[in-house]
Amino acid sequence: MAKQQNILIIGAGLCGSLLALRLAQRGFKVSVYEQRPDLRKVDLNSGRSINMAFSNRGNKAMKLVGIEDKVKALCIPMNGRMLHDIDGNTFFAPYSGREHEHINSISRQKLTALLLDEAEKHENVNIFFNRKCKFVDFEKTTALFQDYENKNEIIKEANVIIATDGAGSVMRQSYYLGRKFLFNFSQEYLNHGYKELSILPTKTGEFKAFKNALHIWARESFMLIALPNLDGSFTVTLFLSYDEGPYNFNNLTKKDRILEFFSTYFKDALELMPNLVDEFFMNPTSPLGTVKCSPWNYKGNTLLMGDAAHAIVPFYGQGMNAAFEDVVELDKVLDTVDGDWETIFKTFATSRKIDTDAIADLAIDNFHEMKGHVNQKLFRDKRNLEMALEKQFPNEYSSKYSLVTFNEHIGYREAMLRGRAQDKAILNLLSDNDLLVEPDMTKDDLKIILDRVIKETEAILVQDSVKRLK
Amino acid sequence: MAKQQNILIIGAGLCGSLLALRLAQRGFKVSVYEQRPDLRKVDLNSGRSINMAFSNRGNKAMKLVGIEDKVKALCIPMNGRMLHDIDGNTFFAPYSGREHEHINSISRQKLTALLLDEAEKHENVNIFFNRKCKFVDFEKTTALFQDYENKNEIIKEANVIIATDGAGSVMRQSYYLGRKFLFNFSQEYLNHGYKELSILPTKTGEFKAFKNALHIWARESFMLIALPNLDGSFTVTLFLSYDEGPYNFNNLTKKDRILEFFSTYFKDALELMPNLVDEFFMNPTSPLGTVKCSPWNYKGNTLLMGDAAHAIVPFYGQGMNAAFEDVVELDKVLDTVDGDWETIFKTFATSRKIDTDAIADLAIDNFHEMKGHVNQKLFRDKRNLEMALEKQFPNEYSSKYSLVTFNEHIGYREAMLRGRAQDKAILNLLSDNDLLVEPDMTKDDLKIILDRVIKETEAILVQDSVKRLK
Repeated sequence: MAKQQNILIIGAGLCGSLLALRLAQRGFKVSVYEQRPDLRKVDLNSGRSINMAFSNRGNKAMKLVGIEDKVKALCIPMNGRMLHDIDGNTFFAPYSGREHEHINSISRQKLTALLLDEAEKHENVNIFFNRKCKFVDFEKTTALFQDYENKNEIIKEANVIIATDGAGSVMRQSYYLGRKFLFNFSQEYLNHGYKELSILPTKTGEFKAFKNALHIWARESFMLIALPNLDGSFTVTLFLSYDEGPYNFNNLTKKDRILEFFSTYFKDALELMPNLVDEFFMNPTSPLGTVKCSPWNYKGNTLLMGDAAHAIVPFYGQGMNAAFEDVVELDKVLDTVDGDWETIFKTFATSRKIDTDAIADLAIDNFHEMKGHVNQKLFRDKRNLEMALEKQFPNEYSSKYSLVTFNEHIGYREAMLRGRAQDKAILNLLSDNDLLVEPDMTKDDLKIILDRVIKETEAILVQDSVKRLK
Repeated sequence: MAKQQNILIIGAGLCGSLLALRLAQRGFKVSVYEQRPDLRKVDLNSGRSINMAFSNRGNKAMKLVGIEDKVKALCIPMNGRMLHDIDGNTFFAPYSGREHEHINSISRQKLTALLLDEAEKHENVNIFFNRKCKFVDFEKTTALFQDYENKNEIIKEANVIIATDGAGSVMRQSYYLGRKFLFNFSQEYLNHGYKELSILPTKTGEFKAFKNALHIWARESFMLIALPNLDGSFTVTLFLSYDEGPYNFNNLTKKDRILEFFSTYFKDALELMPNLVDEFFMNPTSPLGTVKCSPWNYKGNTLLMGDAAHAIVPFYGQGMNAAFEDVVELDKVLDTVDGDWETIFKTFATSRKIDTDAIADLAIDNFHEMKGHVNQKLFRDKRNLEMALEKQFPNEYSSKYSLVTFNEHIGYREAMLRGRAQDKAILNLLSDNDLLVEPDMTKDDLKIILDRVIKETEAILVQDSVKRLK
């Protein structure tokens, strides 16, 4: 692909700024238009989540653009889930039996700022802020922007336009409303919304709870989680139904009721959150939606990437990682496919959509697992067994969570199919009391179990692939 | 619900005109606005299908409004599928083993005209044609219409607005674009489109093919079907991919190639279609889409019904029947629920959506069954067995097709769950060679088979319900 081509990127969020950086490294002329002000200069209270889970798939992209070490400095490792029961007891469940495997908490603002800085080091990159995209003419390959400062409207043309403008993508809307081609589209909301709250640091700047964990207060029909920030605070997120159950967002409108709800269900968290009620009233309640669509491209003119193409719920901690992996995958296609933009876009989108559909479904599954199953004995037995298998047989066994999160060399779909089959195999064996899992099993005992799990998993995978063929 | 309430209906198609009639019978003041001219006065070539499959669920609605006999006069019974193989051999596969069970071919235009005539007999009904809905303000319960004749725009207010404006519903679009509430929405297209063609009658007005069947030329990746009309003609529909396979809509652009395609795959049909090429060029190619959404209502102000709420692909012959059944179900809620419109709409939509989601999925399944499986030996063995069971045990066995089509007292979802479990049961037994089906089995032989099928079906249903609970 000729390097002198002009590429216009809509949206300078996490995905757009990484894409700009990578395309600049490849020599393209890149212009980026972002509707918000420059978050390196203005403190934005955008209503979007403040910190994110960053893991291997995202890191693969950081390696690609050569900033792995700079990103590492922004990361707080989270080695597992810290489960808080209703009486305030805690229980630590590691994410992996392999010691080096963990996820990280990272600031959206700091990571985006780093990516913008790195992108702007390239003189073939121009980033414009306060330019809201209003409409994309995908047949003419032009985009209409409004300048927030002087309200002027400007039309920009490019060889190709790539929209990384998030779950509410304007270009995706232009595809939908344009009715120029058959556009498959779905938006599905959970009945739950989320609200961000916080646990501030101690006066001396220390963390008030264990730093290296993702804290979870799972209460079956709702839950609270907390992720650490570099400044010693935690960002706390409440996931709760809008209108179901005795306590829901629609009826938590009074101070007393909010305190009653938290003191009943999250007593230990409440003690760390003296600022709860103010934040509860001040911060928005936001929906949790999944967006799928196809095609992502219009001929060789335009392409959707990141949340614009596949917005997912946050429960697998993979939203940002999936968007970053999009850039890695597009980069691979640019390396290997010798064709026009239409061929490149189609090749990328066709194979990538299979994986992003999978992580979308996995993320919804994990919502139910996180808020409920983590409390169940069967689930805990399964996790304990898996941790023991991963520890003793690090090269032979990976749980579904590990396949999705730490096995960045396989796609989400492969991770999903294998991970689900494994889960089914272990749960079948456990619930039939076919597996006796003891605390002090030898490696030989575990090897026998591993072989049974592998055999059962393979059998389920064969059944599943026969079903799919039918 | 107070009868003096004003109800505004958007769309006077099959669903809207039936709804107007029924609500008028209940005493409401009904205004209907239709974008097209009155099809009783103008010959419309609207690009929509000319004839439809009419069956028990639709007839339930005709009984409700008391016009069953008038509709019967418009029906041509179709007792089964007439399968045409590639050599021109035909094979008749009845829809049911019970003699009285059949579906019907009916003219969309004639049936709509009848419903409009019946609705207009009520002085509390006013129908306005050539009024295109542009926008619904669901918070104010007003709709904006443009008069096609003088181009004037008018705003109409009502106590409630019900949109029956089809798959491209303007009110549904207003829900989506309004962003005033979380609106779940999906539109999914098949890779196949369709084109309507025809087999004209003989010079003396006779049918050129067997009248009382739905003719199918199933060719695995595409198919042709034909339904009879009262004038001796057949409406023929080609279902074909837009862009896949050696022959597709995108590359069938030349006369010679169209004739080559038809003479290769539909030789016996081609002989009856001297007008093929002209029609092929003249008639539009239309997409096949499924639309699902929720909620259907906005408070007690507005409600989506029929294709506007749940558009489906035509392969189960249930699109119109489902829309008519919507009216029956809403009528039941009006009979039984003593509450405001919001309660009525919610009660209706919550239970109805479960069934319309089911028929949407069944219709896509049947696309694959119709174009492919009907040719397979296993499928034929299964259908032969089912016909024998239905004939010998009419009160004890109904195939999935019968459950969906002829068992109007159960919902689509129940029909789907039971029907799928039965299919799986029979296919399992047949493919394991556990069932020996002979041409001349006695009733006693069949009873043994019936008992095994029922037992296996119940076991599968229990497994399925456990899976759903998980």
